[in-house]
Amino acid sequence: MRDPAAIIMQRIEALASISEEAGRLTRTFGSPAMRRANRLVASWMCEAGLEVREDAIGNLIGHYPGATRPSRILLLGSHLDTVRNAGKFDGPLGVILAIACVEHLRRNQLRLPFALEVCGFAEEEGVRYQSACLGSRAAAGLLADTDLRRTDACGVSMADAIRRFGGQPARLKQARFDARRLLGYVEAHIEQGPVLEEKKLAVGIVTAIAGQSRFQCTFTGRAAHAGTTPMRLRRDALCAAAEFILAVEHYAARKAGLVATAGQIQAEPNASNVIPGMVTLTLDVRHQTDSVRRTAGERFQKLARHIAAARRVNVSAQLVQQTPSVACSPKLSGLLERAAKLHQPEIVHLPSGAGHDAAILARITPAAMLFIRCKEGISHHPDESASRRDLRVALAVLNDFLRLLANEYGRL
Amino acid sequence: MRDPAAIIMQRIEALASISEEAGRLTRTFGSPAMRRANRLVASWMCEAGLEVREDAIGNLIGHYPGATRPSRILLLGSHLDTVRNAGKFDGPLGVILAIACVEHLRRNQLRLPFALEVCGFAEEEGVRYQSACLGSRAAAGLLADTDLRRTDACGVSMADAIRRFGGQPARLKQARFDARRLLGYVEAHIEQGPVLEEKKLAVGIVTAIAGQSRFQCTFTGRAAHAGTTPMRLRRDALCAAAEFILAVEHYAARKAGLVATAGQIQAEPNASNVIPGMVTLTLDVRHQTDSVRRTAGERFQKLARHIAAARRVNVSAQLVQQTPSVACSPKLSGLLERAAKLHQPEIVHLPSGAGHDAAILARITPAAMLFIRCKEGISHHPDESASRRDLRVALAVLNDFLRLLANEYGRL
Repeated sequence: MRDPAAIIMQRIEALASISEEAGRLTRTFGSPAMRRANRLVASWMCEAGLEVREDAIGNLIGHYPGATRPSRILLLGSHLDTVRNAGKFDGPLGVILAIACVEHLRRNQLRLPFALEVCGFAEEEGVRYQSACLGSRAAAGLLADTDLRRTDACGVSMADAIRRFGGQPARLKQARFDARRLLGYVEAHIEQGPVLEEKKLAVGIVTAIAGQSRFQCTFTGRAAHAGTTPMRLRRDALCAAAEFILAVEHYAARKAGLVATAGQIQAEPNASNVIPGMVTLTLDVRHQTDSVRRTAGERFQKLARHIAAARRVNVSAQLVQQTPSVACSPKLSGLLERAAKLHQPEIVHLPSGAGHDAAILARITPAAMLFIRCKEGISHHPDESASRRDLRVALAVLNDFLRLLANEYGRL
Repeated sequence: MRDPAAIIMQRIEALASISEEAGRLTRTFGSPAMRRANRLVASWMCEAGLEVREDAIGNLIGHYPGATRPSRILLLGSHLDTVRNAGKFDGPLGVILAIACVEHLRRNQLRLPFALEVCGFAEEEGVRYQSACLGSRAAAGLLADTDLRRTDACGVSMADAIRRFGGQPARLKQARFDARRLLGYVEAHIEQGPVLEEKKLAVGIVTAIAGQSRFQCTFTGRAAHAGTTPMRLRRDALCAAAEFILAVEHYAARKAGLVATAGQIQAEPNASNVIPGMVTLTLDVRHQTDSVRRTAGERFQKLARHIAAARRVNVSAQLVQQTPSVACSPKLSGLLERAAKLHQPEIVHLPSGAGHDAAILARITPAAMLFIRCKEGISHHPDESASRRDLRVALAVLNDFLRLLANEYGRL
């Protein structure tokens, strides 16, 4: 028998070769690359003994019946789309691992007391419509009509894109999962951060998907001649922004689990011999506990005002978007932990700072996530990498998780 | 007799209406607007009794003979070109004031023991060829052949632009001033900074045109996911840049007369949900004493290295350009000061942080500058403004300066 981890890695490579851009991996919603990826994954699903369907938005779903019919359903999976110039693991890994779990069951002629459905969700990354988790939202019955009216960079509406792909926008509502039948959703995903690598562990248990606040900050001072304006008479918007960036970093570094990032910055007029008159920057704040995140956001707004006032600069620091934290199911996570303990010496619990389909599914069913160590924490980049050894551990943990869940099933 | 300050203001407005762009003031080298501006100023020169010529590069020069011939020559003037979307005073004011001085002499039927030449230099701002003081450099015999081969945004070489304007690139060398005949160069110019306004003074005496060092700094950390990378594991290039910007500000604020400006900043990948992996910024450092500027520049490079090292970030802080300070002539400045004392209670000496034609002329003859108060320090902007009252003071100071210089002439 071939090493299942080798097959997983081979399939990762095979999917990585399906791209809409030459020379790099990009697979967005409704593209011919998505069509080819769904076809290839469907063929693997069939091989593993799954009954395959594609729902009205283009999610690929494989069904592995339970021991009795009708049975409840445990969902396993992740997404098949990618960002632009993506890594190979973010998304596909969770789908391919889930298929490998089913292969393991079939090879051992095992039926569980519940059915499994392996999901390959569409457009988690939100590249084409600037709106994330389209596929899982449709599957959860949470896609709004306004989403269907969104247009891409070429003016094509999402409804048209679904239609051109072969989906049926009018039937999206019927396509959603029947929440009453669901047992839960379990997603394995590359960590996309450096924590597991630092702890020297192959896998980790996700506690929650962190909530996020996004701020847009604009410091307005006065543009002036860099040569003729003495330091003490300046109202330098970039110096104010710099002080703010450091104050944010200082605060976040002292609050466990908090991350705060000034990612975008733009100075005006942005000329080497002119004191910046205006600087805009974005601030991204995340924590698994919503109250910590909200308190931090308010603190940052206050800091911006104090720093600006002391420098005779104006500031606007607006909260432009926020999403609450989503807790993972303690029961499912507890079983993942028991399974993980069988394969590595220590267990680490960590929040996910990135969004995932699991945060959507959690609104209709208990959800849990298993993180897999990510080389140097690099993600959304061609250098994204996970070792074959870690994939082997992840598969073993998922297989044992299913076994434990089957044992516990009567008590759930 | 009409108020000469009113005439000066009227001429400022008349020149401000001559632009190559509709709705805003832009007058660059070789443009039809430059042709019209030179014609208009030439007509004022003629009225004032000046013999007008245009040299091989397009500088407009008006000659007012001295009491004896051949006589030495004192140059007065400034430039007639502007930046894009310019103010009205930067440049033209110095030329129009010089013409008013000659008018004052003629009205009073005065001849000086030296000739005056009023210069309206071309392309001081360097907009078209990204190279400043073309006109004064040609007049000083300092224009290089490499300058003539520079091309503008449309690929037109400077030699061709001079030719199309009616000049003679081949004769530039013959067109230069005969340094042995020159007595000096005196330029009146709007301050372009807030010092005189803060001191509530109409005019100030320029001590030197500050030297300038320009650095290009690149901080290279590691781009990473804003949600999944804990604060302590980050190598955030923007936080490093922010710390550097504040350290530079702190140092410059404590060193009298030093100015240091981070004017341009660019983050990569500049996405709200990605920790900046690379930040480039420019640093512009100026001081009237070269050793102070050089020490500051070295200090800034050291600071950049220390800050980067402490953050596990790489930095390159390269000196990309430097120009030495140019001292003003103590004799001419002393006479300007004596003249200014007759018209305002207090004298302020200040360096010019901006470059001027005077810095070029200083290489072949003693040069001095009179600064005129600038509303709110705003320059290179349509809001640039000087009061009619201050223009009156400036004219009186220049008239008295010429009188004092004539008295001292035998002793010079």
